[in-house]
Amino acid sequence: MSLTECIAPQLVAVDALFRQELNSDIACVNTLVKHVSRFRGKMLRPMLVLLAGKAAGNGELTDAHVTIATVVEMVHMATLVHDDVLDEAELRRKGATINHLRGNEAAVLLGDYLISHSYHLCSSLDSQFASRTIARTTNQVCEGELLQIDNRNNLDLSEETYLQIITRKTASLCATCCLLGATFSKAPQAEINALETYGLSLGIAFQIQDDILDIVGDLASVGKTLGIDIEKQKMTLPVIHFLQTAPPEHRALMRSLISSRDADKIERIRNLILPSNSIAYARDRARDLVQKARAAVAGLCDSEARKVLDTMAEFVVDRPM
Amino acid sequence: MSLTECIAPQLVAVDALFRQELNSDIACVNTLVKHVSRFRGKMLRPMLVLLAGKAAGNGELTDAHVTIATVVEMVHMATLVHDDVLDEAELRRKGATINHLRGNEAAVLLGDYLISHSYHLCSSLDSQFASRTIARTTNQVCEGELLQIDNRNNLDLSEETYLQIITRKTASLCATCCLLGATFSKAPQAEINALETYGLSLGIAFQIQDDILDIVGDLASVGKTLGIDIEKQKMTLPVIHFLQTAPPEHRALMRSLISSRDADKIERIRNLILPSNSIAYARDRARDLVQKARAAVAGLCDSEARKVLDTMAEFVVDRPM
Repeated sequence: MSLTECIAPQLVAVDALFRQELNSDIACVNTLVKHVSRFRGKMLRPMLVLLAGKAAGNGELTDAHVTIATVVEMVHMATLVHDDVLDEAELRRKGATINHLRGNEAAVLLGDYLISHSYHLCSSLDSQFASRTIARTTNQVCEGELLQIDNRNNLDLSEETYLQIITRKTASLCATCCLLGATFSKAPQAEINALETYGLSLGIAFQIQDDILDIVGDLASVGKTLGIDIEKQKMTLPVIHFLQTAPPEHRALMRSLISSRDADKIERIRNLILPSNSIAYARDRARDLVQKARAAVAGLCDSEARKVLDTMAEFVVDRPM
Repeated sequence: MSLTECIAPQLVAVDALFRQELNSDIACVNTLVKHVSRFRGKMLRPMLVLLAGKAAGNGELTDAHVTIATVVEMVHMATLVHDDVLDEAELRRKGATINHLRGNEAAVLLGDYLISHSYHLCSSLDSQFASRTIARTTNQVCEGELLQIDNRNNLDLSEETYLQIITRKTASLCATCCLLGATFSKAPQAEINALETYGLSLGIAFQIQDDILDIVGDLASVGKTLGIDIEKQKMTLPVIHFLQTAPPEHRALMRSLISSRDADKIERIRNLILPSNSIAYARDRARDLVQKARAAVAGLCDSEARKVLDTMAEFVVDRPM
């Protein structure tokens, strides 16, 4: 059973529009775009736009839905490309990252090219509403990322600030996908709000799971460089919980490991945190958020799209990648 | 005599809107924004919007002109911040660059924050026209930059491709400033076209002059890291002309110097190119473009704004910075 069956034609259209919008009359630009297109994987964000559009209001998907779904995919790709520069990552979706292959300069500029085209495409819509909403969201994404690097190596980072960071950098875009999908299906405000809550909760759960996988994931199935959060001294929920709840001598060891430059640092942190209950704590928080997301869409009219949204929420915390 | 007297209130409004739009509820974001605001110098691009608006159509400046002038300044600041990452520059307007002070990560994200807010502000206007035009322009800016790094160390780069690069990366935004300024003053198409030509020619001349100063400029007056084009193996007009016209043994020496990693490379290239006529050739090309810019606005109704545009064009090739 495919999750995407009910939106399959629109996903094909997103793919075509993505290529068309990014096509350049300069050959070297197309070469880079072609490489980055290989990273496209789950299409989670376009799916959220299209499924929210089908699950709410009149349930009719329009060209505007396809345009917005393409825009959010470009925004997401841009953040991935710039994230890989920040993280000095070498692997993304089992392929070499742009920065690893072509240098940081090409990666910075390619990210800029993607974000510029996302706004360009968005401004082809009749109203300014989507442009304004997308730009407000990218403002928040940047703030989340800036707050994150400002708190790097902050061993006393609170769970509250961590949630603020991931809400802005990851969940805000998921929320906007759902909000715009529902709005362009002329949904009543209550349905728009419900879907926005769904997207926000799903996005936070998704990032917590991503952060868990960075510690306990298996490179072969995740397909991207792991241990990066530890390497870049980003505090994530399992580590934050560990530093607040583990026995004092374990906390002290964790603090010294985080700041150390040992070659086996990632493995030692993993071995320290695995026997604790901090991974389970983070998983429980992610599961709570999945339940919140599911509850938000429980009241929508029954539809295939609503069911898929429900299943996707479950999938977020069970995925191996 | 101040060039900006006839648009002084609007420039004050641009400054206020710039601060207001970039203000964040996150303290570390404001700290970075405050630092980057120190780089703001000539306000060339806002001036182009406002002067074009006053010189064309009904000559009435509206809130939309101020908004657009602020948007283009943000776009320009974003490109400066990302350029400094690409160039590994340490100095900008006599202050330390963001990348030098806070690392490449903060600089990449701050550039993203600026570009996101520029689109956010632009999408507050009633129509999509400005957003669409700005985004089309930033597409071109990115293409120009990507074409430039693709041709780094290309010792056979033609003058034609060089002009294509600087037209996209620099002149396209100047042209758009003038086009939007005139459009929002309800100017007839002929005046819009004339001002667009002015902005495009001025922008190309400006970049040629920038490239000349990178070789022959004086650090104390220019106030930013010099010799960067040579360091980053970017081919600029003086060097392109030299490689095509100098005596064979000089060309061979230049080719080997460009590819070398000698500590005194910049000084040796400067000493090789100064006695040739390649700097003068590049200056002449810039002067031709200044004449083209002046001719484009010669037919507009006589006004203080038109006179200032005329003077600014002259200033571009005479400026020491």
